[in-house]
Amino acid sequence: MKLQLSTWQEVEAYLKRSKGVVVPLGSTEQHGPNGLIGTDALCATAVADGLAERAGALVAPAITIGAAQFNLGFAGTISARASTLIALVEDYVRSLARHGFERIYFLNGHGGNLAPAKAAFQDLYGEYSLAGGATRLRLRIRSWWELPSVDRMRRELFGDWEGMHATPSEVAITQALYPTLLATAPAEPPRQLSAQFLRDHAGDNHYDAATHRREFPDGRVGSHSALASAAHGERLLEAAIADAVADYQAFLDEK
Amino acid sequence: MKLQLSTWQEVEAYLKRSKGVVVPLGSTEQHGPNGLIGTDALCATAVADGLAERAGALVAPAITIGAAQFNLGFAGTISARASTLIALVEDYVRSLARHGFERIYFLNGHGGNLAPAKAAFQDLYGEYSLAGGATRLRLRIRSWWELPSVDRMRRELFGDWEGMHATPSEVAITQALYPTLLATAPAEPPRQLSAQFLRDHAGDNHYDAATHRREFPDGRVGSHSALASAAHGERLLEAAIADAVADYQAFLDEK
Amino acid sequence: MKLQLSTWQEVEAYLKRSKGVVVPLGSTEQHGPNGLIGTDALCATAVADGLAERAGALVAPAITIGAAQFNLGFAGTISARASTLIALVEDYVRSLARHGFERIYFLNGHGGNLAPAKAAFQDLYGEYSLAGGATRLRLRIRSWWELPSVDRMRRELFGDWEGMHATPSEVAITQALYPTLLATAPAEPPRQLSAQFLRDHAGDNHYDAATHRREFPDGRVGSHSALASAAHGERLLEAAIADAVADYQAFLDEK
Amino acid sequence: MKLQLSTWQEVEAYLKRSKGVVVPLGSTEQHGPNGLIGTDALCATAVADGLAERAGALVAPAITIGAAQFNLGFAGTISARASTLIALVEDYVRSLARHGFERIYFLNGHGGNLAPAKAAFQDLYGEYSLAGGATRLRLRIRSWWELPSVDRMRRELFGDWEGMHATPSEVAITQALYPTLLATAPAEPPRQLSAQFLRDHAGDNHYDAATHRREFPDGRVGSHSALASAAHGERLLEAAIADAVADYQAFLDEK
Amino acid sequence: MKLQLSTWQEVEAYLKRSKGVVVPLGSTEQHGPNGLIGTDALCATAVADGLAERAGALVAPAITIGAAQFNLGFAGTISARASTLIALVEDYVRSLARHGFERIYFLNGHGGNLAPAKAAFQDLYGEYSLAGGATRLRLRIRSWWELPSVDRMRRELFGDWEGMHATPSEVAITQALYPTLLATAPAEPPRQLSAQFLRDHAGDNHYDAATHRREFPDGRVGSHSALASAAHGERLLEAAIADAVADYQAFLDEK
Amino acid sequence: MKLQLSTWQEVEAYLKRSKGVVVPLGSTEQHGPNGLIGTDALCATAVADGLAERAGALVAPAITIGAAQFNLGFAGTISARASTLIALVEDYVRSLARHGFERIYFLNGHGGNLAPAKAAFQDLYGEYSLAGGATRLRLRIRSWWELPSVDRMRRELFGDWEGMHATPSEVAITQALYPTLLATAPAEPPRQLSAQFLRDHAGDNHYDAATHRREFPDGRVGSHSALASAAHGERLLEAAIADAVADYQAFLDEK
Repeated sequence: MKLQLSTWQEVEAYLKRSKGVVVPLGSTEQHGPNGLIGTDALCATAVADGLAERAGALVAPAITIGAAQFNLGFAGTISARASTLIALVEDYVRSLARHGFERIYFLNGHGGNLAPAKAAFQDLYGEYSLAGGATRLRLRIRSWWELPSVDRMRRELFGDWEGMHATPSEVAITQALYPTLLATAPAEPPRQLSAQFLRDHAGDNHYDAATHRREFPDGRVGSHSALASAAHGERLLEAAIADAVADYQAFLDEK
Repeated sequence: MKLQLSTWQEVEAYLKRSKGVVVPLGSTEQHGPNGLIGTDALCATAVADGLAERAGALVAPAITIGAAQFNLGFAGTISARASTLIALVEDYVRSLARHGFERIYFLNGHGGNLAPAKAAFQDLYGEYSLAGGATRLRLRIRSWWELPSVDRMRRELFGDWEGMHATPSEVAITQALYPTLLATAPAEPPRQLSAQFLRDHAGDNHYDAATHRREFPDGRVGSHSALASAAHGERLLEAAIADAVADYQAFLDEK
Repeated sequence: MKLQLSTWQEVEAYLKRSKGVVVPLGSTEQHGPNGLIGTDALCATAVADGLAERAGALVAPAITIGAAQFNLGFAGTISARASTLIALVEDYVRSLARHGFERIYFLNGHGGNLAPAKAAFQDLYGEYSLAGGATRLRLRIRSWWELPSVDRMRRELFGDWEGMHATPSEVAITQALYPTLLATAPAEPPRQLSAQFLRDHAGDNHYDAATHRREFPDGRVGSHSALASAAHGERLLEAAIADAVADYQAFLDEK
Repeated sequence: MKLQLSTWQEVEAYLKRSKGVVVPLGSTEQHGPNGLIGTDALCATAVADGLAERAGALVAPAITIGAAQFNLGFAGTISARASTLIALVEDYVRSLARHGFERIYFLNGHGGNLAPAKAAFQDLYGEYSLAGGATRLRLRIRSWWELPSVDRMRRELFGDWEGMHATPSEVAITQALYPTLLATAPAEPPRQLSAQFLRDHAGDNHYDAATHRREFPDGRVGSHSALASAAHGERLLEAAIADAVADYQAFLDEK
Repeated sequence: MKLQLSTWQEVEAYLKRSKGVVVPLGSTEQHGPNGLIGTDALCATAVADGLAERAGALVAPAITIGAAQFNLGFAGTISARASTLIALVEDYVRSLARHGFERIYFLNGHGGNLAPAKAAFQDLYGEYSLAGGATRLRLRIRSWWELPSVDRMRRELFGDWEGMHATPSEVAITQALYPTLLATAPAEPPRQLSAQFLRDHAGDNHYDAATHRREFPDGRVGSHSALASAAHGERLLEAAIADAVADYQAFLDEK
Repeated sequence: MKLQLSTWQEVEAYLKRSKGVVVPLGSTEQHGPNGLIGTDALCATAVADGLAERAGALVAPAITIGAAQFNLGFAGTISARASTLIALVEDYVRSLARHGFERIYFLNGHGGNLAPAKAAFQDLYGEYSLAGGATRLRLRIRSWWELPSVDRMRRELFGDWEGMHATPSEVAITQALYPTLLATAPAEPPRQLSAQFLRDHAGDNHYDAATHRREFPDGRVGSHSALASAAHGERLLEAAIADAVADYQAFLDEK
């Protein structure tokens, strides 16, 4: 059930049977030679829509602009300041809580959103914590790639060539979603990332945009995007949706 | 050309032939008994996509959450604070300007966005104004219903029953876009608005949410939504797109 | 009754008979060759004072600094960021509401203030809307030139030469207020504005300051300020006050 | 020379002979049984106008709303948050610096403004300090009552009964300015303040409004306002202006 | 070399041989029955001081207040809003960068700081990214417990009883630092955490304070603090310092 | 009793006998040729710790970063924006008030902190003042050098050579605290400050950093730091602690 395609009376009825809602969280940034600028938003939306359909859940419109300053050196990237994203997450949560939603599940598609989203959660909870009373509000953020079956599958399919950005996994999902798009990635892989790099830059904790482009000139960050295929994408999407349904249900069931 | 479905190289190529970009600006709020919560975003996106297709323009992902506090009394409405929307518009503009875009055209679908968007423009320009030098950056916001052909058509079709919110025009466009959705509005019209009310509350300058719901219990604000039809919607959409193309072109041509 | 010239006991007594208050909203910015930098504040204050006197209303001290970034290329202009003006309007409203005022009427003298003021209204109401309960607080902003008799008169007196900034109407009112000031405007009119320009830049939605000065080198924006006279100013002021009294009364009477 | 009553060309000419400007800084808050709510703004403006006239200086429009939260328990008080006042001072300074003003002299009439104004100065200078280069910009804030002749005179005239708020000195100046206003203060003095209280609450460092009103039920804070007279006010105003001229001149002469 | 105990000339000399600096990042919050409220700051400072001593690095004063809203239900906890911590990290970085520091290494002692610190990094880099040029500035945040030897050791020593908060590891380090403090933890372990809980609440992504206290009534979150000992603390501290030296050196050596 | 070295149960017990708490407020900035960069934090902490010990009071961790933009021209200075310091003071106060603390005593060691701290107090109280009810919360800030015995002693010891920054008093206290540090100041005194300078720049109301360094090339602002000695420091510290105990007690006793 899509919030955008519902009437308010339908949402009112939904709230009588569920206090949960799903919010896709994406980004609008370069994804290398064969990756779409909307990749993160498209993947998060596809997983969230699938989850919502199977779990009978309501899905809100995606936040399509994420915190992606490091990609501003590539044409087309639109980056929200962390402070803007924090404010936007706060507005989503306060509005939804106003109607009685108590479990808000952010299905995330971009590593750089994790820090701002969690910071927003802290300040949202913090208001209750200073006021003193307990709230029934629960906030969760889950990146689709960390769901256990997906995480396993992407390692099986691509190994170290999964990399960090413009990953074959996310590119594959967009290929499954938009099979007619034809941009291609170079057959040769990009420079491989060290374990140290992976640890230091988890959560897209990258440097400034000019430095980033100098280090990763075609936008791939250790990801061999040419390994992606629509067939892989379909399997990954299916795994992500199945896991997300279970994860969302556990979130609802939490006491 | 959709930014989300492009690669960064394609955007780089686009910038060689145009410095213009279109940004749909919507809202996520109740639209009465037969209006979708996503109406404003859906209409703005449909007009922007049509404009982009005909004008060969690039269209960015929509801002789907607008300033809609007065509708928070109806389930499903998600409202951005004006300050959040200002920040988000600033981030769009600064990111796009970073790549060399010089004409940013916000195609608006929600009256309550006008004040925050214009306030954002003031503070964006203000930075240049304090620094002293001229900028080539030009920002425009245009609501689809104020485009001349649309404005004429909606008055011809619905007269005073167009009203202010959940208008038959916007509902009609969503019916054209989603013909299978079946929610219906009451056959009887809502309370009619006075000229004074229309003047005082232009730009969705409404009161608080509880007061608003008390005054407009089913969400229609002087709008007889039952007059909407998919056929009307198709005509309105076509008129909006045609006018928007001309308006956008004039914006690009401005010296 | 002027707030600045009253004691707190007098205000306490006033609140027993009225919950209304008038706040003039001006700007401090160039107004062309024969316009005073304080024109917007002076006009708004004169209309507000006249309204207050006739309606027995309380008038607060004017906000004299408005959002006027586009005029920073002309010496003497002081511009508030939109965000500052929003904060200031919020402080006026919260303070006045604290004492029991329920109808706050902003008498506006500068187009560029409309967006920030309305954005402030949204965020003020928004706090109530999230909390859930209704408030009796009502906020209105009215520009003196849009009052019906004034609007008619200025078109009759000056036609298209009214223009957008440093208008003969506002200059005339300041001449009525300060008859001994002698600055003069050129006899030749400025470049005339197109209908498109008027529509695109309503609400002083202008570009950056350097660009603005290049386009309008002496500060007049389509306004033939030399047509102003103190006699015109007296008639305009009288019309504005009369209309404002009626408009304010209707605001108080609103249920 | 008043900025509000000047044209931009006159300001441009002024800047050729002086880089200095005076900004009165007041407040809008209760001043006891016979004190006007505008007292602080009226006094600051009167001193600043006198200074400007004698020194040939330009005077900007007053900031009439100050940081006065402790007086919100008395009807009519309008208080700016410290953060708002900081933003407003920043906008004054940045706008004036844009035109080439280098010495900005805030003539203050309210103790509660000192902390926000100085905090604003810190953040204004701080931007230059982080960027690295020196600026010629100099900011000063001076309260009229700390000027040496005034300080001496008010102690001679009223001794300890000068107190802290609604002082006979400031009331006297408003009586000199508005001799026909007739509100009277009780003949009996208020509770006297201890030296400890004076030290602890300097700069209007008071507690919350409800506590403040409980402690000072008619608004006088140790000030025996009934001792004020228009004749005293004239002498105090003259002393303040003479001292302010010298102080301003020294500020301009600073290398 | 401690910044607080150095003169500016000594720092100037230091900058000639190194562009690196260490900043301990702690928190002030309850740590269960035998944990000190300052545990996170004390541990981070001890590791940072040890690192600085061995690596010849400069260490700045610790940020002792972290984002710890979930512990506000326990007396003594002082929590910074995420937005405050972001601002403070920005001020550290901008000040240090002003002097020429290029590698700023935050040695972290509190999971709840990770999101705000990374959000601050994004907005700090983002300014460079919008401006366009590359910066030599590199920011790193490392929690002492994720350093490889420490991570191994704490699992060996305490297994699952390490838990999430008031861990035996951190308590042990404070016991090594302050051997005379005598508070004791219950001999019985707390409720054990599920793998799901650990995943969902990583980075101290906890709920509001009242809920948190209800779930974890004595402040231990799955951590069997009674297992701590000063001897364990000494070993853990030594391991942390040794690893931190290597990690910091690698950071300096990064091109 | 140190908050950092206490458990939450100990703080809970403390609150049963006292509602007071002490917060040292320092700065991290150059203090001339023989002054430590941490001087302000070290002095404030030493006085606060002494006060706490004698008065049986709880002392929170120091705020070690103050508003010190004017010293950013000297290596090692870390300056908080005034807005950051305001936010941090707010977080301390709100957190402590959450636990039931009612008297929060900031023991200050840096003049530049006075304006931000007082601005924070205004906005903290202002929330209560707008809401309407009285709060029992009382906030005080006291600089150790203004305590009467210290003020007398430092004038006796150093006369005019006390100066404004890197004063022999504060340097002496750090020499008492760290007797083995050996940096020395020039035997020749710095340029002496005029009375006018002292008045104009009270509260460290200095200009930008580059200008400041040009005026005071070795960091001493009228202070003859070479007059400092550990013996003086011990006497000053003792005097400060004794006075602070009395002052804090009076604060607690205030009704």
